[in-house]
Amino acid sequence: MTNVNNRKDVAGLLTRMREKAPLIHNITNVVVTNFTANGLLAIGASPVMAYAKEEVGEMATVADALVLNIGTLTADNVESMIIAGKAANAANTPVILDPVGAGATSFRTESIQRILNDVKISLLRGNAAEVSNVAGMEAEIKGVDSVSSLEDHAVIAVHAAKKIGVPVCITGERDVVTDGQELYYVGNGHPIMTKVTGAGCLLSSCLAAFIAVEDDIVRASVAGLAAYGIAAEKVVKSNPAIGPGSFQAAFLDELNSISEEDINQYKKIEGPQGE
Amino acid sequence: MTNVNNRKDVAGLLTRMREKAPLIHNITNVVVTNFTANGLLAIGASPVMAYAKEEVGEMATVADALVLNIGTLTADNVESMIIAGKAANAANTPVILDPVGAGATSFRTESIQRILNDVKISLLRGNAAEVSNVAGMEAEIKGVDSVSSLEDHAVIAVHAAKKIGVPVCITGERDVVTDGQELYYVGNGHPIMTKVTGAGCLLSSCLAAFIAVEDDIVRASVAGLAAYGIAAEKVVKSNPAIGPGSFQAAFLDELNSISEEDINQYKKIEGPQGE
Amino acid sequence: MTNVNNRKDVAGLLTRMREKAPLIHNITNVVVTNFTANGLLAIGASPVMAYAKEEVGEMATVADALVLNIGTLTADNVESMIIAGKAANAANTPVILDPVGAGATSFRTESIQRILNDVKISLLRGNAAEVSNVAGMEAEIKGVDSVSSLEDHAVIAVHAAKKIGVPVCITGERDVVTDGQELYYVGNGHPIMTKVTGAGCLLSSCLAAFIAVEDDIVRASVAGLAAYGIAAEKVVKSNPAIGPGSFQAAFLDELNSISEEDINQYKKIEGPQGE
Repeated sequence: MTNVNNRKDVAGLLTRMREKAPLIHNITNVVVTNFTANGLLAIGASPVMAYAKEEVGEMATVADALVLNIGTLTADNVESMIIAGKAANAANTPVILDPVGAGATSFRTESIQRILNDVKISLLRGNAAEVSNVAGMEAEIKGVDSVSSLEDHAVIAVHAAKKIGVPVCITGERDVVTDGQELYYVGNGHPIMTKVTGAGCLLSSCLAAFIAVEDDIVRASVAGLAAYGIAAEKVVKSNPAIGPGSFQAAFLDELNSISEEDINQYKKIEGPQGE
Repeated sequence: MTNVNNRKDVAGLLTRMREKAPLIHNITNVVVTNFTANGLLAIGASPVMAYAKEEVGEMATVADALVLNIGTLTADNVESMIIAGKAANAANTPVILDPVGAGATSFRTESIQRILNDVKISLLRGNAAEVSNVAGMEAEIKGVDSVSSLEDHAVIAVHAAKKIGVPVCITGERDVVTDGQELYYVGNGHPIMTKVTGAGCLLSSCLAAFIAVEDDIVRASVAGLAAYGIAAEKVVKSNPAIGPGSFQAAFLDELNSISEEDINQYKKIEGPQGE
Repeated sequence: MTNVNNRKDVAGLLTRMREKAPLIHNITNVVVTNFTANGLLAIGASPVMAYAKEEVGEMATVADALVLNIGTLTADNVESMIIAGKAANAANTPVILDPVGAGATSFRTESIQRILNDVKISLLRGNAAEVSNVAGMEAEIKGVDSVSSLEDHAVIAVHAAKKIGVPVCITGERDVVTDGQELYYVGNGHPIMTKVTGAGCLLSSCLAAFIAVEDDIVRASVAGLAAYGIAAEKVVKSNPAIGPGSFQAAFLDELNSISEEDINQYKKIEGPQGE
């Protein structure tokens, strides 16, 4: 049985994460490598990027979490992801999958399925369309007018979590996290994040940092979502007219300075909702 | 017959582009991927990067424009560029070619020729040396004392446009755009842009965003050059002593906030000059 | 015989470097490409990135220095590094090796040895653990309680320089540079640099820019370390509470504006220490 309060009492995880400074191995897309590394350093984790088939297994074994992000996938990278994922599984290292652009091309759709067949993941994090595609739900959601409403996101997340058998996080105006049983909403964040490339990718890597220090994947994800969203809110609060270029730098500053107190004061977490 | 005024009346294209938020598929170099994606988001377009042979055809087909940038070319990327380019041609998707470093190595020179043989491009955008190389004009410009004077840029652009059979944009202190018949000068911009890596690469992608909503390639290019250059000028106007690091962020802010009014007020467009 | 004073009188090298604006060919990792290019532009050098086996030899031949950085190594990149390195050697172009993560995986360890076997390098720049690994000193340093003390860094650097037969720079709280005979300490810099990914990688490329204009590798390295560290100090001096995101932009600004006077006023160079 899950302690409901425990899953919403997340501020302490930030300190625990920073004390460990977990090593996060990212196999990610070429657009966001720098922002991901700097964001992980800022929030208090230790990033490492390694892609070569010859070394990803070793690196994933010593890492505290592995992030697979298919944003600029190549055939070589798929192989590396599977090698790294299997090594992570063998070492009980959690694996976070970010299915960027799943459904955009058949190569992405098929590669995701190959990865899911060979690697046991700990969390799937994407937007509603990506998660629907990964869960093979296109047919099922055809009848739904829009996948943009919050109810739809919750439905998609729960279905996907049950179908794939792992916790799912769908980000959007309000984020949802579920293990297929309980569902939480996190309302932190700001629309300007849609103007920064890699905001979702870095989020996945930050969730990995929390998952590296907390076995309850849902709780770790709720913590990470709250911290990440509050950092964005704090930037806009101190500078409401900020543009997207300045936001990017200021957001890294806030990830670095955000505190437990900030999380306790500003977190917008609702749940759990059962079925 | 081209309406001359129409080609200089470009401010409205900014709004039209933002309303469409065209999907720009970039196969670009590893140095500038992040800046290109953030710059396209800032100005109002939708960036996507995809490189794998297995998916670039599909991606280029759904995109509103395709940008091929050879800045850190590999043999694999050349294949991907040709596959994507052919798919774009089949879908009537405009293709913008940025021949970064053409002439620096024989691999770049030859790869550009392979791409030009197989892919019909809509615009060639580079500096004077790159465009000269692409057009095979080294011999012809040998006698010219310098390729840095504006007259030379105009001559090179017109010759290249006629030889390759596509509109050409040469950027420098003053930019020139020509379809081989008419030639326009755009005087916006600021020298600090030479201190930001990828300023030219992002420009090519921004021109693609305008070309995605305007069939007159010359007019679209003039619009993009003016908007881009004015954004840079506005940054320096508000902070004359700004350094190149701060400029980069502030430039993204200005790309995001630049308006039709800014373009009407600050544009420095001259032309057309016939032959 | 080395003129001791000469090796510490380094401010003039900054001007000499900027006057030449040396072309620095980087084969580096995907995390830091943009920051490296912008940092080199800021300090006054000319960056070029080229990776393809088909062109790296030509590019290294025309470059004024070559930087090999194994941060996100692939098997293809190792080949390219060796081709480029041999071409650089043939052209008497200095080669700087940054063994990022050496020892973290056997692929990195072995690739470094392959590069060292085939390419004569001019400077090895890394942290203490990386340099120890490259020099095969794990066994020898087993008895040392910690490799974090300054004495240890000096010992490791001198041993590595003698074993590999090239000058070595180990960066840390205080940097050490040695050719195996004389050793210098450079105390400039600021801890916030550990919060910026690629701070070490960009440093290696900046050292390459100084080495491109000064045959005395130790003196060139001391100059580069001082300039780089002072730029960081100046940022923090003008804004003591600066976060890591804002620091990154401000640091590029300072690399651009740092002067000979700054170096003369703020340099913290000690040495030489003989054996």
